[in-house]
Amino acid sequence: MEAGARLFSERDVGGVSVREICGAAGTGINMIHHYFGSKDGLLDAIIAQFDVSAFETPLRLLQMPARSGDDLSARLELVFATTLEACLRQREVLLIALRVQRNMATLIAFHEAFVSFLEGAIEDGLVRRTLDPEMISGLILDRVINQVAYADWIKNVKGIDVAEDEAYRQRWCRANVDLLLHGLLKP
Amino acid sequence: MEAGARLFSERDVGGVSVREICGAAGTGINMIHHYFGSKDGLLDAIIAQFDVSAFETPLRLLQMPARSGDDLSARLELVFATTLEACLRQREVLLIALRVQRNMATLIAFHEAFVSFLEGAIEDGLVRRTLDPEMISGLILDRVINQVAYADWIKNVKGIDVAEDEAYRQRWCRANVDLLLHGLLKP
Repeated sequence: MEAGARLFSERDVGGVSVREICGAAGTGINMIHHYFGSKDGLLDAIIAQFDVSAFETPLRLLQMPARSGDDLSARLELVFATTLEACLRQREVLLIALRVQRNMATLIAFHEAFVSFLEGAIEDGLVRRTLDPEMISGLILDRVINQVAYADWIKNVKGIDVAEDEAYRQRWCRANVDLLLHGLLKP
Repeated sequence: MEAGARLFSERDVGGVSVREICGAAGTGINMIHHYFGSKDGLLDAIIAQFDVSAFETPLRLLQMPARSGDDLSARLELVFATTLEACLRQREVLLIALRVQRNMATLIAFHEAFVSFLEGAIEDGLVRRTLDPEMISGLILDRVINQVAYADWIKNVKGIDVAEDEAYRQRWCRANVDLLLHGLLKP
């Protein structure tokens, strides 16, 4: 599975052969057939890894309603940070899942949890009622996923290593939450 | 170039042969060598298409300083809409550029224009001074690019065709600008 994840994250599934995966894993050529049925079965097993527990922490953070503006702010900062960390930790599997756009139950669960969280905060009078949670539910994921998917490009252009530079991640999460809560306009 | 763009947008460059491109284009096998030197030369020519004029309109919209909050709001809505349209129009080339993460001068130009625009609006007292433009410069591109890159997935999950559904795009642009300007919190 490790060898498959590495190869599938670098190239299209179609361009990676069973022979190559077994070679990289140092196993016999029919082990994939034996354990996973086929190359596609191995792919499913790899993607399923991302689904099990990747977003456990951010999902739990979104389950409890926010009690105040300060709570909302602290909570969203943690949601950004833990989602980014989860995506960095499972970078290869995430890249494969995004590429084949299959079985993205974790991402859907995140969207749904975020929409419910915002709807709760609207009900509680913390968040503006004119907001359209459905239309902005992807914002955090768009931001986080692209920090991981384009990490090499960010390194080349800005010289910043997202995975290694904790200070950058913290500043990035804070700036996102600040904008998300207060918007651009001067009050 | 059309045949190459289609094939490169569907699969890794390494998985597409010169013979295949020429076959799809209905030309002789040595035409790529003749006009572009190599497969990589063809790839560069395809990516360069995106760089020339794709973001001309949004870049021009970001050049003039915003005169008021209403102007800022209208301007950002147009920036979202025209950037999204440009990306949809050049979907194949964008997907290739994102995949090979090379020669992304257009995206860098957009980032720089957006940061200058925000810095100008901060100077003019329209936008909060505590904002960190560098940290949020990717927000519009992250949102727009993912609407295009994951269009198939959005169609499968939400049943929405981003390219065809103008009403959805309008609602999406407006919701993004509303959030961007005013934030989540109830005043």
